[in-house]
Amino acid sequence: MSNPKAVVLLSGGMDSATCLAVALAEGYEAYPIAFRYGQRHAVELECAARVCAHFGLPADRLYVVDLTGAFRGSALTGDAPVPTGRPLGALAAHIPATYVPARNIVFLSLAAAYAEPLGARDIFIGVNAVDYSGYPDCRPEFISAFTAALNLGTQAGEERRCFRIHTPLVRLTKGQIVRLGQALGVPFHLTHSCYQGTVPACGVCDSCQLRLKGFREAGLEDPIPYHGVK
Amino acid sequence: MSNPKAVVLLSGGMDSATCLAVALAEGYEAYPIAFRYGQRHAVELECAARVCAHFGLPADRLYVVDLTGAFRGSALTGDAPVPTGRPLGALAAHIPATYVPARNIVFLSLAAAYAEPLGARDIFIGVNAVDYSGYPDCRPEFISAFTAALNLGTQAGEERRCFRIHTPLVRLTKGQIVRLGQALGVPFHLTHSCYQGTVPACGVCDSCQLRLKGFREAGLEDPIPYHGVK
Repeated sequence: MSNPKAVVLLSGGMDSATCLAVALAEGYEAYPIAFRYGQRHAVELECAARVCAHFGLPADRLYVVDLTGAFRGSALTGDAPVPTGRPLGALAAHIPATYVPARNIVFLSLAAAYAEPLGARDIFIGVNAVDYSGYPDCRPEFISAFTAALNLGTQAGEERRCFRIHTPLVRLTKGQIVRLGQALGVPFHLTHSCYQGTVPACGVCDSCQLRLKGFREAGLEDPIPYHGVK
Repeated sequence: MSNPKAVVLLSGGMDSATCLAVALAEGYEAYPIAFRYGQRHAVELECAARVCAHFGLPADRLYVVDLTGAFRGSALTGDAPVPTGRPLGALAAHIPATYVPARNIVFLSLAAAYAEPLGARDIFIGVNAVDYSGYPDCRPEFISAFTAALNLGTQAGEERRCFRIHTPLVRLTKGQIVRLGQALGVPFHLTHSCYQGTVPACGVCDSCQLRLKGFREAGLEDPIPYHGVK
């Protein structure tokens, strides 16, 4: 019997790459899905492809959905400046300018639309509700409610082949994510997290700060180059 | 004070055109959203534009999201034949080949992504759970669950400016929808419902059959031409 298929949301950042590694370690045949949505950090998509190759997935396995223009009004799509140098302690208290309206809702919906004809009922997403930027669609309560809606609104749910949304990182600190990723052989040198999309990474946006914090906590050196102070 | 804004899912079919008329009659400033997703019946998008013009909306008001390629494996996207001549009484009993996986989930997600930066918290969708083709994402239970997920996963929900999903047609028969549309001045002659996307309409797919039944029940003549028997 072949391994069950799972659709894995892959952005090319360290969290989603770790999430992919978890899905593979759990024995799933992974079908990564990525989104082009006008993000400043489109370099992530190249990283996603390299991460897939690293894990030995077939060259055409990564499915990139083009959503250019579907999101407006966010700093991540170039409509506002990316905040930098925000104190990490304050991140989750307010929804930042990098919030993309309903992003994970859209991504999970399209993941389900992809999964259903594929015969996959498992969806992996690397959301994190501990060390994160304060996005409401990264929390367990949202994921539970969305899963319920999905199973009421799809043929799979109808036929009791219910979707399961796996969030293996949701309750981990960034340091724990780095350690988990290292244990599972995640090629962190191929991942990219900077919201500004620069190479070297800026080091000062929320995402860079959280990533650097994770490596510090794990007692490891982040292998990617940074423009700012490390 | 200006009227509240509402995002209205508009396919160009008779139901969504009626739904737009309801939103306008309720005093909303309507922002229709339509989707290009490789549907056979892409003629619907032209109809959607004509319906908007009929209701006096600005020429650039209709927002068309390009999702070509995002849905696979459905008869509506050309991957399987459109069933024709199915007895109407059997429609809701089985999910048909025209089911597009997670379609309304994806559409509502993108409608929310559009609504949030627009400052609209009202979303109108013309789903119907009485005379319909048996799609699970047209039922009130799904809409309720999705609304809950949306409000847990967005800034709007966070700030207690909760989204409301309006489904004014959900409990109406097709005949009642025709009568409501007529009362509200819906230009039925500009709408198109045929799943096969032919002009004249085929008259035998589920959608044509339901539409013809609606006009019969309402005691009205459907103004669009049909290829088959009327």
